[in-house]
Amino acid sequence: MSVDANKMYGAVEAGGTKFVCAVGAGKEIIELCRVPTTSPEETFDKVIQFFQSHRHNLCGLGVASFGPVDLNPESKAYGFITSTPKPGWAQTDLLGTLRRELGLPLAFDTDVNGSAVGEAAYGAAQNLQDFIYITVGTGIGGGVITNSHLVHGLVHTELGHIFLPKHPLDSYIGHCPYHGDKCFEGLACGPAVSERWGIEASDLSTEHKAWEIQAWYLGAALSSIICAYSPQRIILGGGVMDVPGLLEKVHKQTLAHLNGYVKHPDIQENINNYVVKPGLGEHAGVIGALELIRRKLESQGSSV
Amino acid sequence: MSVDANKMYGAVEAGGTKFVCAVGAGKEIIELCRVPTTSPEETFDKVIQFFQSHRHNLCGLGVASFGPVDLNPESKAYGFITSTPKPGWAQTDLLGTLRRELGLPLAFDTDVNGSAVGEAAYGAAQNLQDFIYITVGTGIGGGVITNSHLVHGLVHTELGHIFLPKHPLDSYIGHCPYHGDKCFEGLACGPAVSERWGIEASDLSTEHKAWEIQAWYLGAALSSIICAYSPQRIILGGGVMDVPGLLEKVHKQTLAHLNGYVKHPDIQENINNYVVKPGLGEHAGVIGALELIRRKLESQGSSV
Repeated sequence: MSVDANKMYGAVEAGGTKFVCAVGAGKEIIELCRVPTTSPEETFDKVIQFFQSHRHNLCGLGVASFGPVDLNPESKAYGFITSTPKPGWAQTDLLGTLRRELGLPLAFDTDVNGSAVGEAAYGAAQNLQDFIYITVGTGIGGGVITNSHLVHGLVHTELGHIFLPKHPLDSYIGHCPYHGDKCFEGLACGPAVSERWGIEASDLSTEHKAWEIQAWYLGAALSSIICAYSPQRIILGGGVMDVPGLLEKVHKQTLAHLNGYVKHPDIQENINNYVVKPGLGEHAGVIGALELIRRKLESQGSSV
Repeated sequence: MSVDANKMYGAVEAGGTKFVCAVGAGKEIIELCRVPTTSPEETFDKVIQFFQSHRHNLCGLGVASFGPVDLNPESKAYGFITSTPKPGWAQTDLLGTLRRELGLPLAFDTDVNGSAVGEAAYGAAQNLQDFIYITVGTGIGGGVITNSHLVHGLVHTELGHIFLPKHPLDSYIGHCPYHGDKCFEGLACGPAVSERWGIEASDLSTEHKAWEIQAWYLGAALSSIICAYSPQRIILGGGVMDVPGLLEKVHKQTLAHLNGYVKHPDIQENINNYVVKPGLGEHAGVIGALELIRRKLESQGSSV
């Protein structure tokens, strides 16, 4: 696909560690910049600066953000990052700031919903009606697509906070400020691995038993997710999943936890193709954000 | 609503304890019969006998069944109850038997999906796009509606088998033959309550601490479900929920487990209206089965 300079979009994947900003169309990114997430003011300044230099080429801007966020267009806080525990970021008007400074049509969703939309359009979930995108990194979250549509519901999903049983040999108190050692994120996000073993997760040997326990939790979560949604595929992204061998351990633990209860050849006979890494790699979120705004403008019949 | 004798439907709610058969239309049931679930042959004989006496009045038959079931119309086992642990019932051709004997147009789904459709049409989920129907009885299951559509996915949901943490004072080994004490059903179905305390659940005083622990598990499951789907409402049916005071305990425990993480006035300020009993009471399933066949025939433009 070649990029038509008249149909270019901007995209922001707003994360707790960095904001990834891009200009592109479809799955093609023609320019990309990473802005460290510092204070909202400083971060927004750099993001706006990036897009202002491309302003005249852009039809609109897609924003996929860490959360919790307010996705209700009727709400006064629409487009805000709301009750995040991230210092300085609670009740931040992300979308309003971008609208005021850039004056572009905007689309807005959670980071993981953005990634799910990207994977559906160009990645590992093409032609699937029901799948889950999960990221396991600094936090854990999931984008849920059922019957080919994103699930938003009352607020938005918070898949990192489903509860899990405790591994029988794990005495770690958990990382979640809300749920301690009861929830998926509290037990299995990157910082939980680091805290459990008293060493940066990235410094743990790939042979360390940490990864067996991590795979046990991820397998338990995936077994729950299979029971909850009956997806056609699960995509596992995020930095933690880059650990060599971890995905294969997760395949085994998912089947072990399910224990044959949900029976389907796609699961039992083809787990390597059922639980997969993102087809778009680390660009799932930002390509998804491009797709969010493209779809919104096309559904509105805008002249893009 | 009055019943037009030319637009009557049959409905079967096939359960592990009884098959509820009905003739009616909309939410109006004009005749109902309960057949104990014994052997498939004996049970089917009585079900067929009931409908044969109404055969000339019926436009079609909706069937909502316990499972696991095969819902894929392309599959050889479509309409079968598949890998159930219920003795004598594994690989039973429920739908095929009814088709051969009654020769009526049929609609087929899980029991809990039937109940969810019934509640959406005439019960506690009217005008809601995103909600969950859960039954807590001999087993635990859930019907999931997102964006106004049932979630089926690869097989169907198995909400009773999502995993939960263990209550700190509970040493019960769990009732689930597949997941022991790790899953919702293993910890909180009716037989689990009876086994945990060595006394029939129905004989436990409403003051017994059993119900505090039961509410703890139900609250944990509901907190997970809120994080997983972000529903606008959760409907809690099934015999166990008839215990006086249990629903109120579940309200408290759901909020305690969520611990303020997902914030919405519908949850924090209005939990009594957020987690509710079925609007159709024990008839949710059979009214849902009537609705399944009505919708199917109307969507096909059949002359009903």
